[in-house]
Amino acid sequence: MIWYKDKNDGIVISTRIRLARNLDGIPFPNALKDKAAHSQKIKAAVKDSSSPLAAQMDYLELDNASDLNKLSLAEEHLVSPQMLEGEGKSVLISKDNTMSIMLMEEDHIRLQVILGGFRLDEAYSTAEKLDDLIESKVNYAFDEEFGYLTACPTNAGTGLRASVMMHLPGLVLTKNISRIISQVNSLGIEVRGLYGEGTEADGNLYQISNRITMGLSEAEIIERLKKVVAQVSEAETKARDILKQQYGESASDRFYRAYGTLKYARSMTSSEAKALLSEVMLGKNMGIIKESGKLSPLECMICSTPSMISRGKELSPSERDKARAEFLRENL
Amino acid sequence: MIWYKDKNDGIVISTRIRLARNLDGIPFPNALKDKAAHSQKIKAAVKDSSSPLAAQMDYLELDNASDLNKLSLAEEHLVSPQMLEGEGKSVLISKDNTMSIMLMEEDHIRLQVILGGFRLDEAYSTAEKLDDLIESKVNYAFDEEFGYLTACPTNAGTGLRASVMMHLPGLVLTKNISRIISQVNSLGIEVRGLYGEGTEADGNLYQISNRITMGLSEAEIIERLKKVVAQVSEAETKARDILKQQYGESASDRFYRAYGTLKYARSMTSSEAKALLSEVMLGKNMGIIKESGKLSPLECMICSTPSMISRGKELSPSERDKARAEFLRENL
Repeated sequence: MIWYKDKNDGIVISTRIRLARNLDGIPFPNALKDKAAHSQKIKAAVKDSSSPLAAQMDYLELDNASDLNKLSLAEEHLVSPQMLEGEGKSVLISKDNTMSIMLMEEDHIRLQVILGGFRLDEAYSTAEKLDDLIESKVNYAFDEEFGYLTACPTNAGTGLRASVMMHLPGLVLTKNISRIISQVNSLGIEVRGLYGEGTEADGNLYQISNRITMGLSEAEIIERLKKVVAQVSEAETKARDILKQQYGESASDRFYRAYGTLKYARSMTSSEAKALLSEVMLGKNMGIIKESGKLSPLECMICSTPSMISRGKELSPSERDKARAEFLRENL
Repeated sequence: MIWYKDKNDGIVISTRIRLARNLDGIPFPNALKDKAAHSQKIKAAVKDSSSPLAAQMDYLELDNASDLNKLSLAEEHLVSPQMLEGEGKSVLISKDNTMSIMLMEEDHIRLQVILGGFRLDEAYSTAEKLDDLIESKVNYAFDEEFGYLTACPTNAGTGLRASVMMHLPGLVLTKNISRIISQVNSLGIEVRGLYGEGTEADGNLYQISNRITMGLSEAEIIERLKKVVAQVSEAETKARDILKQQYGESASDRFYRAYGTLKYARSMTSSEAKALLSEVMLGKNMGIIKESGKLSPLECMICSTPSMISRGKELSPSERDKARAEFLRENL
């Protein structure tokens, strides 16, 4: 199931494992001429195998995909934003939208597993299987000293980026987020807003991932991240308890006003929508908002970004804000 | 039909005619001992007549009425706020809530007709019938030179107060209200906020009435008021047209956000409720808001004042704000 429709604990929204790999003896994609031939070779390694994973993977050449299709894949985090630019890129995506293998992104192969909730071990174990499947058919660029070689040295070594997406409104509203971010940073863990780099992320969604890919084993990287995420999660839970006390009886008024605005506004910017949807998520997590619509507030957030709302059409900002308000009224 | 449930044109909400009368040769109520006996005499004049009006009137002694009942009558403008204080007061109220005869208020008799919409002639003609009915049985205090005598000289002469309640959000939002009020004042016409004396009335509801009761005939008083109300109404219509242009496409967003807040808030002050309900009234008048609940926005406004919300119970302000929000969610 695609991560944003899957279950989560209200704090850790999703888990992603990404492995960067390259074919041995072949230039990195930015200097590679016959990308298509190499992509076909990797595709064949996956599709022609007898692994049960093979049947699940669909192949898509992005040159032939519509802009709308590509944008959706990027917004759903099934391909990286870089995959939307340049030529000769393709992707294998599992039918359940939990696995994707990007070909000819920055590296020849970027395989990822993305799951709803806090499931680092499960995601890594699946990624490992995909990795083994490919490695059984092609030779990876690997150095005994440096490990897996990558186009950008910051990914070399394990080639592993493990990350979780967290919803941290409690830490933001109690003004603890900056402190937590610096603590986490000092442990070699990176924190980014889902939709930007600031400490006040739109929608209070944060991506937390390992900065270091070399000098640690995959297991160590994942254990470290797991520990940090558990700590941040605990801090968020405490912050929400504090908010509950601070707001007291006014909590339901606050959350329901956000809900009412989302249900009736006729025009809404992306940034307001994210802020209000984050309130509604928190209100639901706190057991205050009971109403459920066609989509969860998280699904609404993912699906109401400017590009998702435009759905490939040329819309002016004000047309988009109207379309977004309509989308939210109908689906929240 | 009670005025706030009746039809109106969206600008002139209701019309009220009030006649002040006193019994001849008897002290005014503030110095009168046997109020009950005199009240009974007036009651009998109405009830024992053969007029079809007689059967419609119910008699209520306010000393025996519950606080809640009295408060409701005052909020619905069927009795004046002064009727809630002191003893020995009673009222005859028509079953359709359009006529009331207050006994032993400031004057022995204050009869009023209150109708939805802009209906000065109809209201006056009904008030005249009630007045004739009583005058056929009792002697009014009347002076050839001064006309009807009243406890306070500002009511003497015709004893007539003709007033209309207007909803003027357009003039308020375009900042023309102060100018209009001074123009109207210079014509001997009084403008008051429904819930206060300021120029920015809660809910943008204004009471417009004649200041002069003497030196003009009843017909002249009514004609003057009619003319002024028509002018204010025209100015309000123009102001709404200007707003329509100013707001452009953002109008529906504005009105629906007010509506959404009313439909979902869990706590709301009286003043916020009136402001938002006034927006919703305007949005409905402009044909933008189509939704209808159990009560109209005007009914909600009349029924969500602190005393109406408390309904005779002792509520703290925050309990009242919660009860009001609940009332509005259920009824708007």
